[in-house]
Amino acid sequence: MKLREVKPEIRVLGVDDGHYGPEDDRTLVVGVVMRGGKWIDGVMCTEVTVDGLDATDRIAEMINRSKHKPQLRVVLTDGVTFAGFNILDIQRLHEETGLPVVAVIKHEPDLSSIISALENLDRTEERRKMVLRAGPVYEATTKPGEPPVYFQCAGISPRVAELVLKRTATRHRLPEPIRVAHFIATGITKGESSSGA
Amino acid sequence: MKLREVKPEIRVLGVDDGHYGPEDDRTLVVGVVMRGGKWIDGVMCTEVTVDGLDATDRIAEMINRSKHKPQLRVVLTDGVTFAGFNILDIQRLHEETGLPVVAVIKHEPDLSSIISALENLDRTEERRKMVLRAGPVYEATTKPGEPPVYFQCAGISPRVAELVLKRTATRHRLPEPIRVAHFIATGITKGESSSGA
Repeated sequence: MKLREVKPEIRVLGVDDGHYGPEDDRTLVVGVVMRGGKWIDGVMCTEVTVDGLDATDRIAEMINRSKHKPQLRVVLTDGVTFAGFNILDIQRLHEETGLPVVAVIKHEPDLSSIISALENLDRTEERRKMVLRAGPVYEATTKPGEPPVYFQCAGISPRVAELVLKRTATRHRLPEPIRVAHFIATGITKGESSSGA
Repeated sequence: MKLREVKPEIRVLGVDDGHYGPEDDRTLVVGVVMRGGKWIDGVMCTEVTVDGLDATDRIAEMINRSKHKPQLRVVLTDGVTFAGFNILDIQRLHEETGLPVVAVIKHEPDLSSIISALENLDRTEERRKMVLRAGPVYEATTKPGEPPVYFQCAGISPRVAELVLKRTATRHRLPEPIRVAHFIATGITKGESSSGA
């Protein structure tokens, strides 16, 4: 699906992962369906392996089995690293769900330090390719007078992705669906949410 | 604390329980901190025993340990039965947290059938007293033209409780903090949320 317009009540899925401790093999990933960054329409979840390679498959399954899928127009994720260095391949997530995907973070990502860190894990080359396949990092000012956010996108032009970010950054410069997914994922895994995605 | 005014951005905790299956001994209970039924400020959780007697203790602990406690003005719960017939004693929850508590449901509660069902559980008399201690059931029309909701309250007058319900029923006749707690609790325990609290 090609996203051509960004309606005020656009249905967006925000995705973020929970906390995990040294003894945990897996952690929770939460998806929140919101309308235009204002109203919550649903919550879904899955689990991914710490430092594993299953984030793309698990998140694609979670989206594809959801009853909200027909209404969803775009998926916003908190960056491309889940549960440590379980890299989300945003191109493949786009292909497998048919939805545009925008990975958003608060600080400019240091791709070279991510790539160096991958040296300590198995299947380094595979992970490195997934990081690079996420493509160029763009910058968007979602709240005038505040620092920008940074994003990578798949199946959507950077121009339209920026409109989605502006539309859904209703309270904070990060899109509200990502903030709420963060509150839920950390609230459930830690007993109480930590602030900020 | 006596609640004397209901500000537009009043901080409210909405509480609801998750799904459980025949093999589960316990289920998730989620608390969502919202401002005036609009913005989510945090998420917290605990677990309670199916058909147990620990709902009041667990929910009081969850509230008392929360960093959001100083800002909270009122607790809204989805009725007084959690995880089957684990009765929430709203009077004791009010005493242990110092916060007003309002238990809200969509349909007029059938107290006599709840009390009959308690006959099948241990400590029937204790549970029966907790149900009766929740006090009279009041009715409030939170959305003009829609059916009313029903509530019981502790540490707050029915008149002020009704103002809180009207203020927080931003999208549906049930207060938004209870609806969002329901989406999260069912979304996490079932993989995807069911609609309506």
